[in-house]
Amino acid sequence: MARTLIRGGTVVSATGSQLLDVLIDGETIAAVVQPGSTALGVDLAAAADVVIDATGKYVIPGGVDGHTHMQMPFGGTEASDTFETGTRAAAFGGTTTIVDFVVQTPGVRLQDALASWHDKASGRCAIDYGFHQIIGEVTDESLKGMAELVSEGVTSFKLFMAYPGVFYSDDGKILRAMQTGAELGALLMMHAENGIAIDVLVAQALRRGETAPYYHGVTRPWQLEEEATHRAIMLAQVTGAPLYIVHVSAKQALEQIAQARGNGHNVFGETCPQYLYLSLEEQLGAPGFEGAKWVCSTPLRARAEGHQDELWRYLRTGDVTTVATDHCPFCMKDQKERGIGDFSKIPNGIGGVEHRMDLMFQGVRDGRLALERWVDVCCTTPARMFGMYPRKGVISPGADADIVVYDPNGHTSIGVGKTHHMNMDYSAYEGFEIDGHVDTVLSRGRVVVDDDRYVGSAGHGRFVRRALSQNLI
Amino acid sequence: MARTLIRGGTVVSATGSQLLDVLIDGETIAAVVQPGSTALGVDLAAAADVVIDATGKYVIPGGVDGHTHMQMPFGGTEASDTFETGTRAAAFGGTTTIVDFVVQTPGVRLQDALASWHDKASGRCAIDYGFHQIIGEVTDESLKGMAELVSEGVTSFKLFMAYPGVFYSDDGKILRAMQTGAELGALLMMHAENGIAIDVLVAQALRRGETAPYYHGVTRPWQLEEEATHRAIMLAQVTGAPLYIVHVSAKQALEQIAQARGNGHNVFGETCPQYLYLSLEEQLGAPGFEGAKWVCSTPLRARAEGHQDELWRYLRTGDVTTVATDHCPFCMKDQKERGIGDFSKIPNGIGGVEHRMDLMFQGVRDGRLALERWVDVCCTTPARMFGMYPRKGVISPGADADIVVYDPNGHTSIGVGKTHHMNMDYSAYEGFEIDGHVDTVLSRGRVVVDDDRYVGSAGHGRFVRRALSQNLI
Amino acid sequence: MARTLIRGGTVVSATGSQLLDVLIDGETIAAVVQPGSTALGVDLAAAADVVIDATGKYVIPGGVDGHTHMQMPFGGTEASDTFETGTRAAAFGGTTTIVDFVVQTPGVRLQDALASWHDKASGRCAIDYGFHQIIGEVTDESLKGMAELVSEGVTSFKLFMAYPGVFYSDDGKILRAMQTGAELGALLMMHAENGIAIDVLVAQALRRGETAPYYHGVTRPWQLEEEATHRAIMLAQVTGAPLYIVHVSAKQALEQIAQARGNGHNVFGETCPQYLYLSLEEQLGAPGFEGAKWVCSTPLRARAEGHQDELWRYLRTGDVTTVATDHCPFCMKDQKERGIGDFSKIPNGIGGVEHRMDLMFQGVRDGRLALERWVDVCCTTPARMFGMYPRKGVISPGADADIVVYDPNGHTSIGVGKTHHMNMDYSAYEGFEIDGHVDTVLSRGRVVVDDDRYVGSAGHGRFVRRALSQNLI
Amino acid sequence: MARTLIRGGTVVSATGSQLLDVLIDGETIAAVVQPGSTALGVDLAAAADVVIDATGKYVIPGGVDGHTHMQMPFGGTEASDTFETGTRAAAFGGTTTIVDFVVQTPGVRLQDALASWHDKASGRCAIDYGFHQIIGEVTDESLKGMAELVSEGVTSFKLFMAYPGVFYSDDGKILRAMQTGAELGALLMMHAENGIAIDVLVAQALRRGETAPYYHGVTRPWQLEEEATHRAIMLAQVTGAPLYIVHVSAKQALEQIAQARGNGHNVFGETCPQYLYLSLEEQLGAPGFEGAKWVCSTPLRARAEGHQDELWRYLRTGDVTTVATDHCPFCMKDQKERGIGDFSKIPNGIGGVEHRMDLMFQGVRDGRLALERWVDVCCTTPARMFGMYPRKGVISPGADADIVVYDPNGHTSIGVGKTHHMNMDYSAYEGFEIDGHVDTVLSRGRVVVDDDRYVGSAGHGRFVRRALSQNLI
Repeated sequence: MARTLIRGGTVVSATGSQLLDVLIDGETIAAVVQPGSTALGVDLAAAADVVIDATGKYVIPGGVDGHTHMQMPFGGTEASDTFETGTRAAAFGGTTTIVDFVVQTPGVRLQDALASWHDKASGRCAIDYGFHQIIGEVTDESLKGMAELVSEGVTSFKLFMAYPGVFYSDDGKILRAMQTGAELGALLMMHAENGIAIDVLVAQALRRGETAPYYHGVTRPWQLEEEATHRAIMLAQVTGAPLYIVHVSAKQALEQIAQARGNGHNVFGETCPQYLYLSLEEQLGAPGFEGAKWVCSTPLRARAEGHQDELWRYLRTGDVTTVATDHCPFCMKDQKERGIGDFSKIPNGIGGVEHRMDLMFQGVRDGRLALERWVDVCCTTPARMFGMYPRKGVISPGADADIVVYDPNGHTSIGVGKTHHMNMDYSAYEGFEIDGHVDTVLSRGRVVVDDDRYVGSAGHGRFVRRALSQNLI
Repeated sequence: MARTLIRGGTVVSATGSQLLDVLIDGETIAAVVQPGSTALGVDLAAAADVVIDATGKYVIPGGVDGHTHMQMPFGGTEASDTFETGTRAAAFGGTTTIVDFVVQTPGVRLQDALASWHDKASGRCAIDYGFHQIIGEVTDESLKGMAELVSEGVTSFKLFMAYPGVFYSDDGKILRAMQTGAELGALLMMHAENGIAIDVLVAQALRRGETAPYYHGVTRPWQLEEEATHRAIMLAQVTGAPLYIVHVSAKQALEQIAQARGNGHNVFGETCPQYLYLSLEEQLGAPGFEGAKWVCSTPLRARAEGHQDELWRYLRTGDVTTVATDHCPFCMKDQKERGIGDFSKIPNGIGGVEHRMDLMFQGVRDGRLALERWVDVCCTTPARMFGMYPRKGVISPGADADIVVYDPNGHTSIGVGKTHHMNMDYSAYEGFEIDGHVDTVLSRGRVVVDDDRYVGSAGHGRFVRRALSQNLI
Repeated sequence: MARTLIRGGTVVSATGSQLLDVLIDGETIAAVVQPGSTALGVDLAAAADVVIDATGKYVIPGGVDGHTHMQMPFGGTEASDTFETGTRAAAFGGTTTIVDFVVQTPGVRLQDALASWHDKASGRCAIDYGFHQIIGEVTDESLKGMAELVSEGVTSFKLFMAYPGVFYSDDGKILRAMQTGAELGALLMMHAENGIAIDVLVAQALRRGETAPYYHGVTRPWQLEEEATHRAIMLAQVTGAPLYIVHVSAKQALEQIAQARGNGHNVFGETCPQYLYLSLEEQLGAPGFEGAKWVCSTPLRARAEGHQDELWRYLRTGDVTTVATDHCPFCMKDQKERGIGDFSKIPNGIGGVEHRMDLMFQGVRDGRLALERWVDVCCTTPARMFGMYPRKGVISPGADADIVVYDPNGHTSIGVGKTHHMNMDYSAYEGFEIDGHVDTVLSRGRVVVDDDRYVGSAGHGRFVRRALSQNLI
Repeated sequence: MARTLIRGGTVVSATGSQLLDVLIDGETIAAVVQPGSTALGVDLAAAADVVIDATGKYVIPGGVDGHTHMQMPFGGTEASDTFETGTRAAAFGGTTTIVDFVVQTPGVRLQDALASWHDKASGRCAIDYGFHQIIGEVTDESLKGMAELVSEGVTSFKLFMAYPGVFYSDDGKILRAMQTGAELGALLMMHAENGIAIDVLVAQALRRGETAPYYHGVTRPWQLEEEATHRAIMLAQVTGAPLYIVHVSAKQALEQIAQARGNGHNVFGETCPQYLYLSLEEQLGAPGFEGAKWVCSTPLRARAEGHQDELWRYLRTGDVTTVATDHCPFCMKDQKERGIGDFSKIPNGIGGVEHRMDLMFQGVRDGRLALERWVDVCCTTPARMFGMYPRKGVISPGADADIVVYDPNGHTSIGVGKTHHMNMDYSAYEGFEIDGHVDTVLSRGRVVVDDDRYVGSAGHGRFVRRALSQNLI
């Protein structure tokens, strides 16, 4: 297979930056070399089949997006990106690994649900992918299934404290799943919102005629996210399970996570670009039905309450462990529109798998995040968190050659008709301008995106069998 | 210069471990290569002058000890290790860089104090060394001197809230030095104990006839460390200066640091092995004058109060940023003995530069610390903290070839007549047994310790001009 | 009606102590007079029908026990004290008002449940009594019933987060009841334990053969009390309802309450003497089936974890608002014995209505509580908390003449065959010795207990129509 | 002496309100009687020489202002109210006891300083007064003097962490005074601002030409109040002394106090009306030299930072223990004007002894404070805090007849030429309108203010020998 040399670039890792040449041999990184060194006694460029000049650019590990939902069934419809369209869009944005969620529905065995997701993804992905397993029904059998899944490389299990009647598990079921997680050393992931209480507020709002998308946010107050977060943490403490809270949007929920972490517990918080940039007032509160574009759960929070700034702070302090997208796209037409006149019928989800690396780099440019921390929260720590390190998340010999050449002097305009490759008829970030650009993306040694062109292929992406989390303390 | 290949070992970084070969060319790392890779088309071993077989061993960046006091004048005597003996002992223990403290005494210009320390160290060190500057007297002139020192690679400045009449600065002087630090982007380091209050307690204790070494600890209660820590943090917040609290021993002081860090401030805590392993009751309270061996400030804390366990916890959570030794050795004979009958005359200090890497590795073996975190707190983060990354603290091409081959299956017995190479007539850790062993130590590409033999030379070690801290958020 | 003068005593209020004479006219206090004053121009003693000499003794407001369960149906049996035996025992112990719990069971209207409890109590009580209402089923109708009950003097409503299938309400129902409470200004009371999770632990323990009373405590870990407490607080914040957490036994639950109070929320914590004096190890862990005597929920906590000392501290700081007994007695014979071989079948409850004033006074003697705070947490604040002030809880003209003459130099030995008047075949405090003694107890002007003799009568006690809480901030 | 009956009013205590008649005999309250009671067999009105009709009004204990500085020497001038003018103004405002500060200057014995203050006050006061002692110089002799002062009824001692060269004590001196306080059980009071650091900021500001009154606030940032507060708390914990922090204006300082209180320490916080109502932006930042009117230390805080609202919250939660005025008036002419062109020369102080009861009652009217809490923080708790209960601070037989008839339906306009009786040429609260009115004020049984007329006399007020604090936990 081909040898590729990326030379002249600044390799950025989670701990710092260096001018380094990177030699790829086939699918993996073969060597990292001091530019100009004569020690090897070979001309690296001559030995390479392809030479990518990264002078003046950052060379970073490909992005790892730990939270996506391709063609996920929800509310009578299905997320609009297939594994093919979604992973291609991810690649455009510099993400080279996703971890998607298998959904177990009641009555279906975990293993069968996993098999069906393998079917959906296999042969279609532009980049590598792993799976988390949603446990829709905690039974003796599904608890036993967890061990089997771990041995098959699915080492994290998601439960829901929201969506009664759909994904919801009560505290007893959560406790049991956590006990099994603790035994296996497997990570429990939690959608932490008090869905039982929220559903009362939703019904009351609808009864009052508060049907607009804005009320989706109002009926999911931060208290009910903070509460569920705390509850999940305490249940985890009873059992000893490591706990990962997905898509945290309320600063108070993060404060709960920060306290648990400060006490030495294995509790982790994920946030998403939408919670860092968008808000209840500006987006969910857009006129008419426009706000439906940003209906997702947990909801966007009020900027006036300061959540966005606090989330950036928690990113800096490390109490936000990772940034994922919770990519779950729905089109306005036919999909989001189901909720006209009743916000509770709007499919929950925002698409963003394509823009995470850019949006977070903008945080670097805006002085909100250190350059190393950008790589840390978007690439290295997600890989460690989900048991894929050092295969993913690091530029080091032996690692998969998932590499992004990122131009800090480039520019990216987000929007439909611009950089948009997701299968959505709108962009949640329409009009955002990014002071940086994804130039070249390699997945396992192969260039899949170059100069805004997709040169990869469906099926190149392979399933990643994940180990247990490598990010526990 | 010679080419050295370290092959077959597991390279441990702050983020994980990998089997990697490391090629050194002269003083720096030239390449890191996947073992067995044919991509380069060369036989690395053949190209190397020396091959070190690290099979089954860890290959880690050389230790960075950010806090030592070689031949430091204190209490009418001088720390018993010279730069020659001290750095040699450090090398034996796998530490390849120290940052020592220049002492400015009133009336002396900062620049002159620095020059005099350069004289002491130059041509004598076994390993590389940097300098922090103690500001003994905050004046307009010394504040101006700070800028000059930064340009000469001395980028951190230490003040004392303890030792009135010796090193002590009052809060107004601290504020002024911090203002200058904030302007320069330079780090302020603080000995945080309320020395004014402590001196009252000391005088009262002596008046009551409480003269034994144990009372050194009793008269420095944790409240007065916690207080000074908090005060330093608030003064830093007024000015915007980054703040590094040295040798934290009280869990409550760390709680203050943790709170400030949680609020997003650039506050950092250092602890030392003595605070993790030793205690007021067991060591300072040893019969007779024996406790004098462990007289240091901040003092060892009561095990019954749980400080040691909490410090390990804070190491895991990241609120302890670095582990240094505060190496400041005094012999019992003629030195510590000055304090027979009056603990306040015992020179303050414990020697430990030789044992830090081993003692902290024992934490890994005891399940108190992750393997990566060992490298992080002992090597990588100290290098970043003090502006030496990526020259120090990381195994990466371009970095200085400061490397330790560490055998996790080896064994080390600490004690005089055993592994002891420091110029002290006792060991603070006498009888400690370590489940690991420093096999080989390279400093800038040259083997300086091999199989418990010193093969380096005084003067090999060079002064490291440091940049500003790379560990700020 | 008769005039009674209590003279020579030290009247203790929630704010301090004074030598004062108290003149009672019929059922109420007519005047409080400076001893020896000639201002009134009358000889008080001459004007009185009865003179009680309280020289050297404390004269305090009769105790208000805000949490009792007389003849409460539970687990197929019924609490062993009737309103007659229970209130008589209360009187013996210096308590002159209880607030008992009406139980609504599903399908029964709140108003009908209340009527049935009126039937049980009316004409039988030795002292005055009020009612809280347990809402066993949150429905539109029971929510409407709350307003009616408030107008009938039942102004506080209790919900359970424990006991699924019996009293348990889910979070949506709790939210709705709290919304109604907030509208009415009525107090919500909460049994805060995560019963859903507890029931899983209980079933698992029984399956493992852990059937002894001790496992009652083990399967209700503090985390699940802390969790439910936090959850109740957050639900209350969503609605604005004032919240009163009953029988708090875990220090961590109190820390949650303290935090909410510190943030200015109307959140209140009640504890009980059993949690201050008794423990998991000593009582619940007694050999054989003996521990069944102390099976109550929340459970006794481990002394090794420091709950008892911390609860005393919270009493001093004010974060424990009131001390009640949760008096819910069951005999060992035929009642507690139902749980031999299965701790989950042991009726939950401890009898203590008789000993609260003594046990808490012992706290004064032991230096754990200020004298005034004894009166505050046992008399004045419960009266204010539950809307009975100034009729109850204070010695002031116009108040009901519910008065206790308490001898701080007397002595009380607790135990069956000693001071025990409750209808229980054992005492939870057997062998406790109290450095104080209830000498004389007046209920609405009438002496009901004198020198350890009961001189009252069933039916003297009347129902107290309560106002809304007077203790909100 | 005369008998006075106050009848028909609502007596408000720290725990509640009741319709009660109050009979005064000479200087003390003789009886409190249920209106209309015939139990005494006498016609109270007939027995009284004077009857005051309080129908529809509140009858409250006279205000206790625990912090005043009459004719206090400061900055080369003297506070403009004498004991005569100041106590008369206090009486107008419903305050019947002040505790003023004796100033010890270096070289003067505590006892002599006290004698000199007795001279100033004796025979001149309209109302009763006590003394705190400022220790200007901590020496062996002054520490010995503390015991003597306690025996003379001066049981609280104030130290300064601000004003180096004037009142400032260093931490060692503070520690020693606290040790003595702890031995005696006497209260230590603290002006908690880091004066050493502040003086650096002041000098720097003046050097930059920032000379306007506004910079008085800017150079005393909240961090330096919070810091000193924390420091005082920790020093108190080392010694065991009870600690009272005067004039807290920063919410962060109160958070420190709240934390210490939550941990069970005897730490108390006082605030003043100026910090509740006035701000850095609005008052200190007034155009020209106008801001000088509000130059006091601690300074007024920025409203934009939310201090005022938080202080009201802390009043509700009880973490503010008392409200005093820190009455320290200076006229603009000749006094405040000394600081034109140099804010550091403006005498520090605001006059307000006259308006405290009104300003705090307005808090009741505005829904910020419960009625009982008004009496608590202004009357009852200050009396207990400073060892004057039950002589002061409560309406109860045996207490001094210091009583205010307060009309909740009256109105008070604050301002020079309106209700202003303090010896100041401006009012700090000019234009404030109060929905309430001080109708009648009795001091030890004698009416001193009636219907806005002063009918008392200089010299009526007597020195109050105070006991140790009655407010410790």
